[in-house]
Amino acid sequence: MPDWLSSYQKNLLSGDLTAGLIVTVMLIPQSLAYAMLAGLPPEMGLYASILPIIAYALLGSSMTLATGPVAVISLMTASALAPLAQSGSAQYIELAIQMALISGVMLLAFGLLRLGFLAHLLSHPVISGFISGSAILISLGQLKHLLGIPASGNNIAATLLDLTRHLSQTNPATLVIGSSSLLFLWWSRRSLSTLLEKAGMSSRLAGMLSKLAPMISVIGFTFMVYFFSLDTRFGVSVAGHVPQGLPSLGLSLPGFDAIAALWLPALLISLVGFVESVSVAQSLALKRKERILPNRELIGLGAANLASAISGGYPVTGGFARSVVNFSAGANTPLAGIISALLMAIVIAFFTPLFYYLPQAVLAATIISAVTALIDWRSLKNTWQYDRADAFSLLTTMLGVVLLGVEAGILLGIALSLAVLVWRSSHPHMAVLGRVPDTEHYRNIERHAVQTVPGLVALRVDESLFFANAAVVEQKIMALANTDTDVKNMLLVCSAVNQIDATALEMLDQLEKSLAARNIQLYFAEVKGPIMDRLKNTPLGKRMKNKIFLSVHTAFQHLRKDREPN
Amino acid sequence: MPDWLSSYQKNLLSGDLTAGLIVTVMLIPQSLAYAMLAGLPPEMGLYASILPIIAYALLGSSMTLATGPVAVISLMTASALAPLAQSGSAQYIELAIQMALISGVMLLAFGLLRLGFLAHLLSHPVISGFISGSAILISLGQLKHLLGIPASGNNIAATLLDLTRHLSQTNPATLVIGSSSLLFLWWSRRSLSTLLEKAGMSSRLAGMLSKLAPMISVIGFTFMVYFFSLDTRFGVSVAGHVPQGLPSLGLSLPGFDAIAALWLPALLISLVGFVESVSVAQSLALKRKERILPNRELIGLGAANLASAISGGYPVTGGFARSVVNFSAGANTPLAGIISALLMAIVIAFFTPLFYYLPQAVLAATIISAVTALIDWRSLKNTWQYDRADAFSLLTTMLGVVLLGVEAGILLGIALSLAVLVWRSSHPHMAVLGRVPDTEHYRNIERHAVQTVPGLVALRVDESLFFANAAVVEQKIMALANTDTDVKNMLLVCSAVNQIDATALEMLDQLEKSLAARNIQLYFAEVKGPIMDRLKNTPLGKRMKNKIFLSVHTAFQHLRKDREPN
Repeated sequence: MPDWLSSYQKNLLSGDLTAGLIVTVMLIPQSLAYAMLAGLPPEMGLYASILPIIAYALLGSSMTLATGPVAVISLMTASALAPLAQSGSAQYIELAIQMALISGVMLLAFGLLRLGFLAHLLSHPVISGFISGSAILISLGQLKHLLGIPASGNNIAATLLDLTRHLSQTNPATLVIGSSSLLFLWWSRRSLSTLLEKAGMSSRLAGMLSKLAPMISVIGFTFMVYFFSLDTRFGVSVAGHVPQGLPSLGLSLPGFDAIAALWLPALLISLVGFVESVSVAQSLALKRKERILPNRELIGLGAANLASAISGGYPVTGGFARSVVNFSAGANTPLAGIISALLMAIVIAFFTPLFYYLPQAVLAATIISAVTALIDWRSLKNTWQYDRADAFSLLTTMLGVVLLGVEAGILLGIALSLAVLVWRSSHPHMAVLGRVPDTEHYRNIERHAVQTVPGLVALRVDESLFFANAAVVEQKIMALANTDTDVKNMLLVCSAVNQIDATALEMLDQLEKSLAARNIQLYFAEVKGPIMDRLKNTPLGKRMKNKIFLSVHTAFQHLRKDREPN
Repeated sequence: MPDWLSSYQKNLLSGDLTAGLIVTVMLIPQSLAYAMLAGLPPEMGLYASILPIIAYALLGSSMTLATGPVAVISLMTASALAPLAQSGSAQYIELAIQMALISGVMLLAFGLLRLGFLAHLLSHPVISGFISGSAILISLGQLKHLLGIPASGNNIAATLLDLTRHLSQTNPATLVIGSSSLLFLWWSRRSLSTLLEKAGMSSRLAGMLSKLAPMISVIGFTFMVYFFSLDTRFGVSVAGHVPQGLPSLGLSLPGFDAIAALWLPALLISLVGFVESVSVAQSLALKRKERILPNRELIGLGAANLASAISGGYPVTGGFARSVVNFSAGANTPLAGIISALLMAIVIAFFTPLFYYLPQAVLAATIISAVTALIDWRSLKNTWQYDRADAFSLLTTMLGVVLLGVEAGILLGIALSLAVLVWRSSHPHMAVLGRVPDTEHYRNIERHAVQTVPGLVALRVDESLFFANAAVVEQKIMALANTDTDVKNMLLVCSAVNQIDATALEMLDQLEKSLAARNIQLYFAEVKGPIMDRLKNTPLGKRMKNKIFLSVHTAFQHLRKDREPN
């Protein structure tokens, strides 16, 4: 039993109940809409909002994360499955379920292998660019539902072309419903809360009520379609028959072909889902002295996806908007999530016939309104002002997603982040040292008035020595040995070296030999204890036994004397 | 005109001539053999040994690197093309040429974009494991030629199964030729040089003559097959008709399908070829005060591959064995390479009929003898003793290559290297500081007897702040704020922080707010000038204007006073 449950206190209940209820009201339209975005029947969105939430509540580490279907993961699912099967077909549905299964197994495995740190390979600008690009792609993809025209296309050019071609077939009734729903949602996001506050409500209550707008829009327009028979008389597309009853449990294991086709998109979905979810969870936890354990999050999200797979759902993760609402509506523990899962179960067991007349255009408006809120222009502006290289990463990832698609975009973003990481790691800070007169301090000769000893070069490397910087350090030392033909002694100051890996050890071994061949002696100073212990058993350590000084000062004293007799 | 050519001095010529000649004698059997290994007709190995060498000589930065066909790249070519076309077919040949073209364009582009640092993303253990694994895979693949049986198979299991199945069809004459050639090559590698030295030769001459063994084996066995008609009478497979005459120049641009199928293997071939080549070039250059410029190497190798593509060759790079021989045979400048290219042109223009009776088993023996020398057991042993994690990378990459194939193996190796890099970057060294009594020095409280100030925590991070470690630094600070309920001031000591990227800036911004919400003030000390310049224009910098101290000492003085009135 998780800690929060075994130590549950009654006074936490009212907050959890309120939050669970409000999140459910947001979750109903969102789960239907995101299933449509993923190219799946609406009930799969509902299925993905019951067991996954309970699984995460029992195993995850966040007190306030709201899991379930989210926009970006739904888009990634659609984009991965599009080349494999006809959207909405039985095979497509099975592949979506198997995607949740594979992604769940991956997340669990990463959690058990304690690979949570891998989330750090995505920088904020890359994540921001990815989310904004996806939001643009998603919004453009929903235009057809808003206009009531058929359109398809696996990339941005094809989608836009198809939209233009069918523009004359726009269904006026659908367009009116879709655009008024969208305007209502945008207006309520912007002004409803202020309006309610002016009407005398507390700001917290007003904020929460304004989150009910999507549900109000769903109820209002569904009733309107039903009342005026807009579906049969004016051809407004509706959700239609949504099967009633809880999902049946089961598991179909993917075959070799399915695994071969799905592993890469499943990996990307897992990674993006994890990074997005952890960053929301983290920012909420920080406000309340709570702690997020990345490896526990991997296990929680992995279990949620497995739960989704066995109950006929599709890939899920922690969502941004619902988590924030959950937090501000007063959720104290994951019980809020369990309450909303139970409410969702009641909805699907009894009330799905109510969704029959729900217009697809309203779902499209829900999606567009949700994702346009994710487009982060401010972050682009700030990043641009602060760091052009980061702004370039953001823009490249965003354009990559829009122009090349969501998978190529995220791969581009990861590649950019890694290239930055490799570049940074392969350029450690290095300084040639001299003595601050009449002290035992040694400082960078470029920044301080210091004294040097003829024939001795002392280089401090401010970084552990390992494969990514071994070559650069070697080149620096050889360049120093080449600049001055009089160099006799080369001192490597290791005060900031916490580790030397096998690649760097081999480099140092060869370096010592190359320098010796030119009559230059290599010395070390300030080698840390743990490194010394391992170094002394290597051939290099044995050769250099008497050439390792405790401090730079001792080395300078010794090598100055060494020099004087010449 | 390159520097070495415009400033060429006559006294360098004799060394270049000798080296060029000896390398040619090694290159003839190797180029034929490696073409066979790549599944290509023998003349393509010869074609790849003329123009590419000249192109590299004019554009590369190494004085002694010997370029041309090499074993590992030939294996990678075969493995990439096997699923696309029938080995040796016209389509297969065209794809091999286009692989050289794509790889050449990639290398040139990387060189122009100055991406030479990307070579650092492969650690030595990963490279060593990759080479050893490839050597094992190559040797097993050549057994069929040694036994004279048909066998195929795209993976290790299929190859071994096929070998066993056809074992009874072993051709006795082929087996005798193949195994005696292999034994002769192994013996001469191990003992010929010592023997010649004992006979009174200088050690340098003996060493060079022992490199002629593959050519002696080729000449001897070719003559034997011709003289006894072993091909027609005993069914010994021979090279057969090798077209005479220089390659015709031309360029067939790959179509979209070819690019889609070849870009990933071409990228891996480029990366492996570049890394292997640069490390040989670097280790030779170090011995002679010469310098290797990684970006110039990319351009040199890129041009070599383009030259290979337009003259009917396949992907090339700098080879280990031939470069070492070139160096020790006295090559002073790339003129040695140009000489061997001209000699190869003469061979192909006039002497290819001599290769008709060359037994394939002898080529297989040449390959096996060359690649088994690359298996690096000593490096595995040393790495195992020095660093288990590195030894694990080495073994995983090696097993990956043998069991999953050469592409999956190198990808696994890259993934391992990057995971290590990310893990390392996301775990910077951090220390909580206290004052060394009666001084202005501040040191790690865990390692020194120092004084602290109640309510003040000073944390020094020994690393730039950026996306890969922002989350870890934030967690550390929040954990420090949580351990002691009495913390009022949090001081971040930035003496080792050379950069703060957008991700870390956002983290600090949120951190300052979260801490403030708990009545903890955040301060900075020792912020470097360039960081200060950029920080002061950000919202965080403006909020913290009066909370940045020049030194840790000033901060302690100030925050101690701050504390006393309480």
